[in-house]
Amino acid sequence: MNTPLTTDPHQRLGKPAAGWRAQLYAIIFESDTPKGRAFDLTLIGAILLSVLVVVLASVRPLAQQYGGWLETGEWFFTVLFTIEYVARLLCVQRPVVYARSFFGVIDLLSILPSYVSLFIPAAHVVLTVRILRLLRIFRILKLTLYIQEYSMLGDALLASRRKIFVFLSVVFLIVFLLGTVMYVVEGPENGYTSIPVAVYWAISTMTTVGFGDLVPKTDIGRTIASFMMLLGWGILAVPTGIISSEISYQRGRPTLKLRACPSCGSDGHDDSATYCKDCGAALPATAAADR
Amino acid sequence: MNTPLTTDPHQRLGKPAAGWRAQLYAIIFESDTPKGRAFDLTLIGAILLSVLVVVLASVRPLAQQYGGWLETGEWFFTVLFTIEYVARLLCVQRPVVYARSFFGVIDLLSILPSYVSLFIPAAHVVLTVRILRLLRIFRILKLTLYIQEYSMLGDALLASRRKIFVFLSVVFLIVFLLGTVMYVVEGPENGYTSIPVAVYWAISTMTTVGFGDLVPKTDIGRTIASFMMLLGWGILAVPTGIISSEISYQRGRPTLKLRACPSCGSDGHDDSATYCKDCGAALPATAAADR
Amino acid sequence: MNTPLTTDPHQRLGKPAAGWRAQLYAIIFESDTPKGRAFDLTLIGAILLSVLVVVLASVRPLAQQYGGWLETGEWFFTVLFTIEYVARLLCVQRPVVYARSFFGVIDLLSILPSYVSLFIPAAHVVLTVRILRLLRIFRILKLTLYIQEYSMLGDALLASRRKIFVFLSVVFLIVFLLGTVMYVVEGPENGYTSIPVAVYWAISTMTTVGFGDLVPKTDIGRTIASFMMLLGWGILAVPTGIISSEISYQRGRPTLKLRACPSCGSDGHDDSATYCKDCGAALPATAAADR
Amino acid sequence: MNTPLTTDPHQRLGKPAAGWRAQLYAIIFESDTPKGRAFDLTLIGAILLSVLVVVLASVRPLAQQYGGWLETGEWFFTVLFTIEYVARLLCVQRPVVYARSFFGVIDLLSILPSYVSLFIPAAHVVLTVRILRLLRIFRILKLTLYIQEYSMLGDALLASRRKIFVFLSVVFLIVFLLGTVMYVVEGPENGYTSIPVAVYWAISTMTTVGFGDLVPKTDIGRTIASFMMLLGWGILAVPTGIISSEISYQRGRPTLKLRACPSCGSDGHDDSATYCKDCGAALPATAAADR
Repeated sequence: MNTPLTTDPHQRLGKPAAGWRAQLYAIIFESDTPKGRAFDLTLIGAILLSVLVVVLASVRPLAQQYGGWLETGEWFFTVLFTIEYVARLLCVQRPVVYARSFFGVIDLLSILPSYVSLFIPAAHVVLTVRILRLLRIFRILKLTLYIQEYSMLGDALLASRRKIFVFLSVVFLIVFLLGTVMYVVEGPENGYTSIPVAVYWAISTMTTVGFGDLVPKTDIGRTIASFMMLLGWGILAVPTGIISSEISYQRGRPTLKLRACPSCGSDGHDDSATYCKDCGAALPATAAADR
Repeated sequence: MNTPLTTDPHQRLGKPAAGWRAQLYAIIFESDTPKGRAFDLTLIGAILLSVLVVVLASVRPLAQQYGGWLETGEWFFTVLFTIEYVARLLCVQRPVVYARSFFGVIDLLSILPSYVSLFIPAAHVVLTVRILRLLRIFRILKLTLYIQEYSMLGDALLASRRKIFVFLSVVFLIVFLLGTVMYVVEGPENGYTSIPVAVYWAISTMTTVGFGDLVPKTDIGRTIASFMMLLGWGILAVPTGIISSEISYQRGRPTLKLRACPSCGSDGHDDSATYCKDCGAALPATAAADR
Repeated sequence: MNTPLTTDPHQRLGKPAAGWRAQLYAIIFESDTPKGRAFDLTLIGAILLSVLVVVLASVRPLAQQYGGWLETGEWFFTVLFTIEYVARLLCVQRPVVYARSFFGVIDLLSILPSYVSLFIPAAHVVLTVRILRLLRIFRILKLTLYIQEYSMLGDALLASRRKIFVFLSVVFLIVFLLGTVMYVVEGPENGYTSIPVAVYWAISTMTTVGFGDLVPKTDIGRTIASFMMLLGWGILAVPTGIISSEISYQRGRPTLKLRACPSCGSDGHDDSATYCKDCGAALPATAAADR
Repeated sequence: MNTPLTTDPHQRLGKPAAGWRAQLYAIIFESDTPKGRAFDLTLIGAILLSVLVVVLASVRPLAQQYGGWLETGEWFFTVLFTIEYVARLLCVQRPVVYARSFFGVIDLLSILPSYVSLFIPAAHVVLTVRILRLLRIFRILKLTLYIQEYSMLGDALLASRRKIFVFLSVVFLIVFLLGTVMYVVEGPENGYTSIPVAVYWAISTMTTVGFGDLVPKTDIGRTIASFMMLLGWGILAVPTGIISSEISYQRGRPTLKLRACPSCGSDGHDDSATYCKDCGAALPATAAADR
């Protein structure tokens, strides 16, 4: 199975021709055999459980009471993922390419912190790197399920990237200018201690988050804040509009393009149509387009 | 009247052929006779009043002052709904099917807590189950009014479920990663006591709720939070876009339905079509379909 | 000028045929003469100033310092609006119809509180009724500017009213059920003192307002709250979708309907088109449709 | 390069015919030569750095520690921008037109505060005016990159301005009326000290910002607030709908542009058109226009 969206990973990593390495490769990297699918599901389960262990270990009461169990679990998953990492290295033709790829680095970062903590008593900063394991789930999802939905959302975001950049640059300008105005108006005595703090407040206001840790206290400040809230809402309708329009466009495309009548040349026929709606001629059969 | 959207309930539950059970069935389960409609309206009124009693009983000052009246009202509605429940059991051919259906269970849960509290002095947890009575209103609405609107919204959500799942999985990943980052950056001394708490904060920030019970206090934390707020707004424009595009698509469909082929009976023809897309027969001219 | 959107007010109120009453009528009720337009602008100015007086009088420091001036201003506008009210009564043929119409009642409520306060020392509740004067501006806007935009927005909301009702009923159900769940989970000790309070919190959470006066404190409560925030965002994308789709539909309509080719009967011609795009025949001139 | 969207700036400012002034003009005002592009990039860098200096100078601990360095940096950029300003004045034919244009004033305001502070010990209010330098970036972006995206967003907002005005007027009316109601209901004892304060709260509630500095405390107040939050969400779906629909419309237009009539040169023909809508001549067949 080759993915139409990325350059074929099997070619890039070098799929072995035959032997136990080819079999291992099929199990680990492919997902269209029963064994491959079982491996994927097991791996997703192991990843989720190992992340759960990391999360639970961050809750102090739990860490104090079940610390031993959690540490055992952590080492169990570390060893498991180490075996998997070695197996991945072994079964590809070009292990260096794999090790330096995005997911290769993630795989390494998933197991490294535990080993590091053996030598250096690691801070919780290092241990939390293990949460990156979650990213590994996306490799599996990308290869199997929902590939169309992911690529459609990705396409919509990608196609809108210029508009979104333009939009964000305008938003940044506005929050900088209005944040600075609020810094001048409210001043450090009302909590707006510097321009960065005021900009942080401006962002939290214009995105309608509104934490309430900083609030305008003067009359002018409240007037400007009222204006910013309405402006923020108005402005932030723009990304929604951009993405709505993009998704509508993306979903409209396949239907419009794929079918044309060979007799009269008209297009825009439904996927389910058998005859041309304009001249009544028979349409050629269509590959079932899964909407 | 049979609902085109669900499997015909009359067939499933077994509508009696004749006799007083058939009459009772028509009143309770159907809504196209004057009596059936009067029953539905009375039931909606009784449900709303009984829910009002539950709500008022939760307000301490009212409960202390009017406790007796509220308890009397509660028992009045409990007895009323018990009679209705028994009547429903009596008039269907397959009472077990009804009792095990979704609404059958809701009907039972609406009356059970009061009886349970006779034997065991029930905690308010149990009594609050009675609020589920509200769900019973939907059975009535489903059968009568607004059926098209409910089904259209339902269809739009159903058709978008894969995209929404993909979207939610990405959002979960982001709130987990960024929540963990904030847990590391801000730490327990600023209220981010564990990863779950930090994830709760990340969700409240990225959905633009922003309670303000937890707020970033460090400079790096505020910078990350600013980034998250903008990202959150951008990302959360996606479900709006998905649902907007789906609703636009759904509303385009009814028009399609109005044209049916006189030869083969298929429907879903474009307004501009001249020939049937399924059998190639000429379609009759269409009157401009004003939705 | 007769409004195509409401029943003709001139017929309903009875426009006098001639004499000073007809002239007064033209000035007060119509807006297509220079005098009528001048009257409208003066009235808008007077309304805005009188509302400003009411607003300023509510600010305690200002009320204490400039109380006399503000009261004088208030009486000036009250007398002015009384004269206008009497003039309106005088110049229509059916004064009772006017007095009982929506705007007739608003006109009366705009002047009544000041007179009432002469006899009874009125509470500020009564005096604040004067803010209703703002509604009077809409009568003028309705007759003159932006009528197309108002009616388009109105049509979009009106056409969506059934879908919005359905949507709101589902939202009410969800906030009731989840609010009750939070009342049970968090309980009065965390501020969720009754079901109505918990429902108020649920609404403020699901609409992403998030005041932060009530926040979940237990772990289960925070988990449910996280779920509610995501659900709220997902659900509240629905009204945006409904209204987006409706506005798109509304704006699509005029263009499609208004121009048809007299030669070949095809429609969907641009407002700017001079010749039929399908057969090349000349199209009749169109009244400039200001988009 | 002349911009099709604004009146040609080169004609307005008077581009010199030849000589060093023409060369300087090409570097400073144009961006399609290597030198012009290098100048633009350098200027963007200088602007961003100078803004960074202003921002850092507002952070008290940094200002106390690195005050000297920051002041030096500020003077470096002031002198740099002064040279640039003078160069701009020198190389255009009509310096007064430039000096009085929007960007001419911004350019002056970017350097003036530092000079003013030499004579008068300026308050930080004056110094913060320097943040306006950010606006200068937009001149460069406008001329070079992303011009299509900016103009498309601008067109969408411009085309929606009447609808947005109507929408905002309705929103203002609602926040005024409901804010006044809350002032009456909650009163100064719960923090709603005047109508302006209550309106500020109403805006922060209906835009779903919800700072939480003011919250309703009475039962009636909370009920009204719940209603306002739902209403606010419903109403604020409108600008999103307006802008979504406008962006969809705008993006539909480029397709229209691609077809031009070979007889009369007019463009904006539908993809489905066979004849020119302006002169009636036959249009050449169109290749499926992939936007």
